[in-house]
Order: sequence, then structure tokens, then C-alpha cells
Amino acid sequence: MGQKAEVIARLFYPRAVAVIGVTASPERVGYNLLESIVSAGFKGRIYPVHPRLETLAGLPVYRSLEEVPGPVDLAVVGVNQLAALEVVEECGRKGVKGVVLVAGGFKETGPQGEALEKRLVEVARRYGMEVVGPNTLGLLNTHAGLNATFYPLGELPRGSASFITQSGGVGLAILQKARDEGLGIGKWVGVGNRSTLEPADYLEYLAQDESTSVIGLFLEGTEDAGRLARVAGKVARQKPVVVYKVGRSGRADFAALTHTGSMAGSYRMYRQIFGEQFGLLMVENTLAMVAACKALALAPRPAGNGVGVVTHTAGPSIVFLDEVAMGGGVFPAFAPETMEKIKGILGENPPVVLKNPLDAAGQGMQAATFGRLLEAVAQDPGVNLLAAIFCQHRHWRCPTPEILAVRERYGKPVVALYIAALDEVRPERDILQGRGVPVYLTPEEASWGATALIHYALRRGEGE
Amino acid sequence: MGQKAEVIARLFYPRAVAVIGVTASPERVGYNLLESIVSAGFKGRIYPVHPRLETLAGLPVYRSLEEVPGPVDLAVVGVNQLAALEVVEECGRKGVKGVVLVAGGFKETGPQGEALEKRLVEVARRYGMEVVGPNTLGLLNTHAGLNATFYPLGELPRGSASFITQSGGVGLAILQKARDEGLGIGKWVGVGNRSTLEPADYLEYLAQDESTSVIGLFLEGTEDAGRLARVAGKVARQKPVVVYKVGRSGRADFAALTHTGSMAGSYRMYRQIFGEQFGLLMVENTLAMVAACKALALAPRPAGNGVGVVTHTAGPSIVFLDEVAMGGGVFPAFAPETMEKIKGILGENPPVVLKNPLDAAGQGMQAATFGRLLEAVAQDPGVNLLAAIFCQHRHWRCPTPEILAVRERYGKPVVALYIAALDEVRPERDILQGRGVPVYLTPEEASWGATALIHYALRRGEGE
Repeated sequence: MGQKAEVIARLFYPRAVAVIGVTASPERVGYNLLESIVSAGFKGRIYPVHPRLETLAGLPVYRSLEEVPGPVDLAVVGVNQLAALEVVEECGRKGVKGVVLVAGGFKETGPQGEALEKRLVEVARRYGMEVVGPNTLGLLNTHAGLNATFYPLGELPRGSASFITQSGGVGLAILQKARDEGLGIGKWVGVGNRSTLEPADYLEYLAQDESTSVIGLFLEGTEDAGRLARVAGKVARQKPVVVYKVGRSGRADFAALTHTGSMAGSYRMYRQIFGEQFGLLMVENTLAMVAACKALALAPRPAGNGVGVVTHTAGPSIVFLDEVAMGGGVFPAFAPETMEKIKGILGENPPVVLKNPLDAAGQGMQAATFGRLLEAVAQDPGVNLLAAIFCQHRHWRCPTPEILAVRERYGKPVVALYIAALDEVRPERDILQGRGVPVYLTPEEASWGATALIHYALRRGEGE
Repeated sequence: MGQKAEVIARLFYPRAVAVIGVTASPERVGYNLLESIVSAGFKGRIYPVHPRLETLAGLPVYRSLEEVPGPVDLAVVGVNQLAALEVVEECGRKGVKGVVLVAGGFKETGPQGEALEKRLVEVARRYGMEVVGPNTLGLLNTHAGLNATFYPLGELPRGSASFITQSGGVGLAILQKARDEGLGIGKWVGVGNRSTLEPADYLEYLAQDESTSVIGLFLEGTEDAGRLARVAGKVARQKPVVVYKVGRSGRADFAALTHTGSMAGSYRMYRQIFGEQFGLLMVENTLAMVAACKALALAPRPAGNGVGVVTHTAGPSIVFLDEVAMGGGVFPAFAPETMEKIKGILGENPPVVLKNPLDAAGQGMQAATFGRLLEAVAQDPGVNLLAAIFCQHRHWRCPTPEILAVRERYGKPVVALYIAALDEVRPERDILQGRGVPVYLTPEEASWGATALIHYALRRGEGE
């Protein structure tokens, strides 16, 4: 592990955290930085620092960082940009190697802020520190019960999907969508102004982080794009990286520049380098980002791009097919043995055309029949990935046990599309997802999930 | 109203419904057809028909349609394709003008089914009847408490967004997503095999249906595409039509043919006719369909394509801008008076670059400040549509009352992006949506909503 990666590891797994700039007012950033850490269930030491307060959130408050009795791995700093440099200097003197600096007012605001950020970087370099931000929401790591942001979220469900986002707000949008999707998060960092740490640095760390199985990367733009693409391409040979680059319209660049001081760079260039040269999966919205990461986090990689679909409702399977075909999936005709099995289940002359996608119409609404069809298709030599499409119904139960049996017996990945309202399908979904079957509620999200699996089946080992 | 439209009106607002092919077994279609109607709160007469059963769902069962005492406007038929013709003939003799025919096994299955469907059409023509389907899930109309499908959904929330889908399953996916989005549905019909009724027929009816304010159209394909596009173009001059045509990959055509017997036709052709020639809004997935229809159903049309954004988190506003810019929106620089007002609120030198999208950073998290900024931007002469972007937080309340005040005071449409988990944001969302502000949880869905409003602001009066 390189020196940067070691410090980043410490940022995500600190033994002790100091929170500097705490206040007693719930509408202030400092208060929420502390509450975020406490409410996430952090098990290490927490040292709030404030010159006058005595206790906060049931913890003793220290007058200064110097007075904190033990070593500190991570300082979460809530003071504004004018006070930040002195605090970072204090951190350096205390031997703190990692700092989360929330304040804006740096490079993103113009020459004055740029000068301030330059001095910040000098201080950090002098002490061998790394700074997350400035101008960031922070980071979190469910595996350490750590939420070093000013968004208290309680204890989040753990998972193996980790995210690096060049925007705290987009990071939050992804985290919240992931919660709605029942996708557990591993780590997340809002990159902010990239004062000492580039997205590529976090990526190198997550590449060797054992609790991360898939990495989602949201980018506005970075001067470091060449290195980032090389690193991402290399990482993707070990674990999948999903890239969402904003800027398709070409109108987002100025906005990005004034946000995190980043040159967005042309979308086409990113597409070419990340997508074509390094074979990374690129998605076009946060919904697809979460859908893709969910599939990659939960399901095994298929051995090829052959998709077999079983359903009782053709339309969604056609939408699914259309979208997956654009992402490189194929829907092979079933082998003669498979067709024999299907006829054995549905009869010689069912009132449907037997093909792939297999629409069993009314008969397919019986979970047992659905399961037998799925099993037949799972054994087809041309099928590497299964899609099970079912509309939840009050009186026909979902084929959840049948899907799990096929998933476990044949080892091939299964993506389920359960058409239903979220509240009604959540229990079934959580059972399936707990055992390696990602579940989606719209045909397109299911297809984005399947496409991600196929992408990393086809591109395995590609890239520089 | 033409003759077809009159029959269709009767289909959606029947005074009396006969359900033919009912059974006492909850896992059968006939049972669910009856339960769907009863549980949706239908207030007209319901006549279950079965040769031997006495009562069902607390209703007296009639031995045959002939024995039903009063006139019947709609017959919902659950028998299979082999028994269907005789039943439709009976309907004709009874004077029933509208039939929902669920069974598959017609044109979509090959020559034999095609012959059967031809005979079905002959019977319908002879009696001047219209058939929804065959091979359809059916239709529903929340304004009549009518659910004439075999998917009992209880009483659905009413709304003004109506859908025509050439697939029952995709229709269900849209309905369920709409439920999750808090979007009330007006009417929905699964087109099925288009034996006597084309999508264009339903469209002509919905065009003059006063309780429908926006129409969503999902298409696999139809030989009638030319007429459909002309009708849709004409309808869109009165009320917005959102079109989702599957088949971008070119691989969906065979699947569609064996589904509803439709030639899908090239996606490019549809894009050209519907999108370019007739100026209809085309979307590329069910999520965008629901997002667009939600905005069009809830918000007024903007007077132009100028968008003003207020937020405390830049990243999501950049994603929003990028996507909206692709859909024809512009983000004008604020007028000098607006900039003065903003400086009056945030101070002369806030630690952010003042521009549109306006990221007020920390200050923008105070709902009162957010509201004042939104009010300033609402008064900008270049701004026709407002976007309010806020990440829900445990201790900073959402600017819901402020958004409503601006919405009501200035009359300009507002789209809100509340980044949050669905369960946590639902109450705030429902308040806003109840008063004309569509709320989204991801930046892209917000942008699809805003784009739809802009599209129908720009294209008003265009088309043939």
C-alpha cells in the first residue's frame, strides 16, 4: 500500500476522531458533524473540540486539539475557510494525518480562494497530511460505523458498494437512492476541491479494500483525467468500476468550474478514454449508477453475454431486451433440449410463441410453473444470465423461493424485475437481495443492472 | 364525439359491468377480474356471470348474460380464447357495446390465432361493439372507481395523468412507479391486440376527456403509426402527449411481433415522425415517462425555456442543468436587479460564485434564506421555470412553505428536487405535490420533469 493509500485507510478506519468547530446549536455544521459520527455508531474515540463548551452529545469537550489526551487519526473540521488554516496547522502539530475540511471559499471562488487553498496544501505537505476537501460533505464508512459528514443518517446498512463522488450532493443522491433500493453501502467520499487527494487516490485505496466489491465514480472533471482513467482501467481488472461523468450537454462546464474548481473537460473525451480505451462501464444517470452497482455488488459475474428471460408479461421483457441489447447482451434462441423441457411444462401448444424472452402468459403467473421454466432456461448452454420478470399480484405469490433455488443450484446470476409499488415488494426484495439476486421495480433499472454484469463479463481482463 | 369515442367513453364510465368467467378460486383470472372491480370502489352495478355459482364477493351471480336484469355497458371477459367468440356473440345479443377481452391466443400466436381474431372482429362489427384487447390486462378509471383488469389494486388515488400502453406489464410498471411517485392516475388502458381499437382511438377519446390533463403513450409498434402520429400531434395542441417507443436497439421487433402481433417499425422512423415532425415529447424509459407526466399533470406550463435554479448543493444542480440543457432549457445569467437582491440576502462577498444555478452553500440550507433567494430568482425576467434543489436534513427543515409561497405568488412553475430516502420525504412531497409543485428524489428525474414542461412551452401550437 502506498503512503497516500495508508493515510486514506486511516481516514476510513480511524481509531480516534477529533471534531473541531463543534457547537451546541443543531442548525450549525459543527453540531451535525458530531451527531453524524455519534449516531452512525462509531466505536472508536470521539473528541469534540471547543474553547468553552464542557460536554456535548454526552461526551467531554476539549478546549483545544492539543489538550486531547491520545493520538488522533482523523480530524473533522467544521470551521470556516478563514479559520481553517490555523486548525489544519494545529492538526499537523498534533500528528493528525487525515483531515476532513468541510468549508467552502477556496479554489472554487476565484484567485483569493485559490491562494488560500495553496497555503492549505503547503501546510498539509509540511506535516505529511492528507486533506479530504475542502468544500466537501466528507466521507463515510459503514464498516467502521463512521459518518464524517454533517448529514446525520443514523446507522446505515452495510454493503460492499463504495462510491467516490465529485459532489457531496450527488453523493447524497446516490446514497439515498441506494437506501431506497436496499443496496448496502461500504464507503463513500465526497471529493470536494481535490486539494491533496485526487479521485484516483481514493480509487487506488478502494481497489485493495477488501470490503469493497464495486466502485461507483461520479465525475465533474479533473485535470488528472489521464491518470484517473489509467488507474480506473487497472482497478477494473480486479473489481468493477462504474463511471458517471456529467457534461453530455457541454453546458455544465462553467458550473463545474465554479463548484469544485474543476475543468469539466469534454464529455466525449471522457467517453473515449474511460469507455472505449479502458473499457469501463459508463452510465448516464444516478439511477443507472445505483442499478449497476447493485447488480455488481450482489450477483456473480456471468460467464458470457447470453441472457435468458422468463416472464408472464411480454412488454417489460421487450423493454428489458431492447436496453440490454444496446449494452452488449444477446438473447440466444433456446437449445432444442430447452424447448423440449419448456413444452413439457407448458404443453405442446400453449397460446404463446415459445422463444427467448419466454413469455408463459397466464401459466407463468403460477410460481411453481415459473420456477420450472426458469430452471429449464438456467440449464440452456447459451444462457449465462437469467432475468426473472414478474408483476406482483395480491393472489399469485411471487416466485421468490423458486428464483433462489435456481440461483443457488446453477450458479448463474439472476436479475429479478418485480413490478410493484416499493412498500409492497420490499420484504420479497430483501429476501432475494440478501441471497444474491438483485431486484428492480422498473424494466430499465433491471436492464441497467443486467448490462453492468454483462459488461464486466465481456470486458474482463481488457484495458491497458 | 365520434362513435368510437362514445363507446370508449362508455368503457371508461360504464353504468353497469358484467364479469363473465368468474370463479371462486383466488388464483384464477375470473376471480381477480371481479375482485379488481369490487375493491376499486365501483359505484355502478356489477353482475358476475357463471352457470352454477350462486353468489361471489357478496354479489348475486347470474347464470348467463341473458339473465342479467338490466342493460350492461361493459363486459369484462375472463374466458379463454376458445370460448371467447361465443361470449362476445352473447354480449352482442345483450346489446353490450364494450368488451374487455383478457385472453391471449389470438393474432400474436400465428395463423390460427389470426383467423380466430378475424372472426372476433367480424362479430364485434356486426353488433357495433368495440373490444379492448384481446390479449390485454384491461383498463382502469379512478374517476369511476373502475378497475377492469385482473390486478386488484384497491382504491387508487385519483389524478389527471392518463396512460395508453401497448403492453399491460409496462402499463403496470408505469402505474406502480406513479404510485411510488405520488402521482395520481386518471385512466389507463392496455391496448393489447388492437382488434377493433387502435391507440389513436383511445387518444382521440382522452383528448376530449376533461379529467385527463396529460397523456402518456407507450408503444411497441402499430401499422397505424401514421394516423397515430397525426392524432397525437393534434391532441398535443390541446394537452401534452408523452411518447415512449421501445426499440432503440432494433432487436425488439420480433419480440413485439409475437407479443401483440405488432410490427414494431424502426425506432428512427417513430422518432422522426413523432418527435421531429409532430413535435411530441419522446422519453426513453418508464422513469422518465412518469417524471414527465408528473410535471405536466401538476405544474403550469412555463412561458418560455429560461430556468432559474436555487440550491445549497452545486453537484445536483449541474447534473440537472446538463440534462435540461439537452432538452432545450437555458439557464440565463440573472438580471442585475436579481444579482443585487441576491447580494442583499447573501452579503456582498459570500464564499460562492453568484450565478445561475445559484448555489448558496451553507446559507442556502436555512429555509428562510432559501425562500428569499427563490423569490428573488422568481422575479428575474429571464426565468420562466424555477428549480429548487435541497438535500433533506435532520435539523435543517425543508423549504416547503417557502417554495409554496413563491409558487403561488409568482405563478411560475416550480420543480423541486428533494434529495432524500422516499419514506423520509413522503410527507413533504405530498404537501408540495398537492399544491402544484412536482417533487423528485434524483437530479435526473427532476430534469426529466422540467424538460417536459419546457418542451410543451416551446412547442405549443407546433405540429400539423
